[in-house]
Amino acid sequence: MPLEIPSVVIDRLPGYVRVLGRFADAGQDLISSEQLGAMLDVSPAQIRRDLSYFGRFGRQGSGYEVMSLLVRLREILQIDRTWRVCLLGAGRLGRSVAAYGELAAHGFRIVAVFDSDERLVGTQVEGLEVRNMTELEASLDRDSIEIAIIAVPPEAAQRVSERLVAAGIRSILNYSPAHPRVPASVAIRNLEPVMALQAMTFHLTREGPA
Amino acid sequence: MPLEIPSVVIDRLPGYVRVLGRFADAGQDLISSEQLGAMLDVSPAQIRRDLSYFGRFGRQGSGYEVMSLLVRLREILQIDRTWRVCLLGAGRLGRSVAAYGELAAHGFRIVAVFDSDERLVGTQVEGLEVRNMTELEASLDRDSIEIAIIAVPPEAAQRVSERLVAAGIRSILNYSPAHPRVPASVAIRNLEPVMALQAMTFHLTREGPA
Repeated sequence: MPLEIPSVVIDRLPGYVRVLGRFADAGQDLISSEQLGAMLDVSPAQIRRDLSYFGRFGRQGSGYEVMSLLVRLREILQIDRTWRVCLLGAGRLGRSVAAYGELAAHGFRIVAVFDSDERLVGTQVEGLEVRNMTELEASLDRDSIEIAIIAVPPEAAQRVSERLVAAGIRSILNYSPAHPRVPASVAIRNLEPVMALQAMTFHLTREGPA
Repeated sequence: MPLEIPSVVIDRLPGYVRVLGRFADAGQDLISSEQLGAMLDVSPAQIRRDLSYFGRFGRQGSGYEVMSLLVRLREILQIDRTWRVCLLGAGRLGRSVAAYGELAAHGFRIVAVFDSDERLVGTQVEGLEVRNMTELEASLDRDSIEIAIIAVPPEAAQRVSERLVAAGIRSILNYSPAHPRVPASVAIRNLEPVMALQAMTFHLTREGPA
């Protein structure tokens, strides 16, 4: 498998997995790049190019084998394994993220929760006892944590990001209303809705009402 | 003001507003592009280029006036006005999004909630009565709704997106685990964490442990 797969291709793979899973559930054995493309708003040629990065799944003239393609993509994305995740911030936001069942259902298991507020340390979040943020580095190492979710106040986001990166974390999901700076080797996604909306409303304004 | 402001510049403005707000709260009158840049991981030259799109805020040699720059950026992003938002999906996910107080605190006021499940129609979400999805188009128009938040099951996301776009909505925040296709004139942000994590773990895997 070539190492340099464009990240835009990777970003499409979870979508492929979701759509293929629906066809598999419906008992369909073969799927054309046209069918897949129509479900994902990707051209059939693009589908073929995307999937060519991962091996040969197509049968000339008959389409892709749904099951073997699905198994391979799940394997490539390591979807069937469990990832150990820590949650930083046990306030209202953190508790709401922890309660989102889809994370655990897809193998992203929160195994440790941290907060720097002494009043929250020792309380329970989804069955986990909140640890003191001072224990962060030791816990990441001991508990083999690979992914971090940030749900701390914005003024603390940069500092905790730096601690995570220094401790070897390279995948961060950020829910705080700040965009922490991380080295290029670290993947970070900002999922806070207010900043996303503020950038969108600018465009709303400029173009006038629909 | 030039109309063609790169969206990467717009995306940085909410960050400027947040940082400037902190300096204003601290009573600082002037700020250099170096100071601003250090807070946001943007080079001073980039800061100057970004802000030059919106007028002249700098005083040669003394920096930017914090208050007037802040007021102008808030005005540009229309941060002080209220936006009328509808929420599609009154299940667990939708209720959790509706309960996120920061949206209303920043002027994004959910004024209507819809669901297609008859058992949810008529129930309350944060003080709003859930309406039937069949009333969507009529409500968007009557209630002057400009922004939609999607929190429906993935198989319904594409269809509701199309209805929203057809009804004139041009800003969509998507929490469903699907990436709906919309025309280029519509701004959509996907904030669902599982798909974001799945695309990130691919990179984790490929590069090996830190």
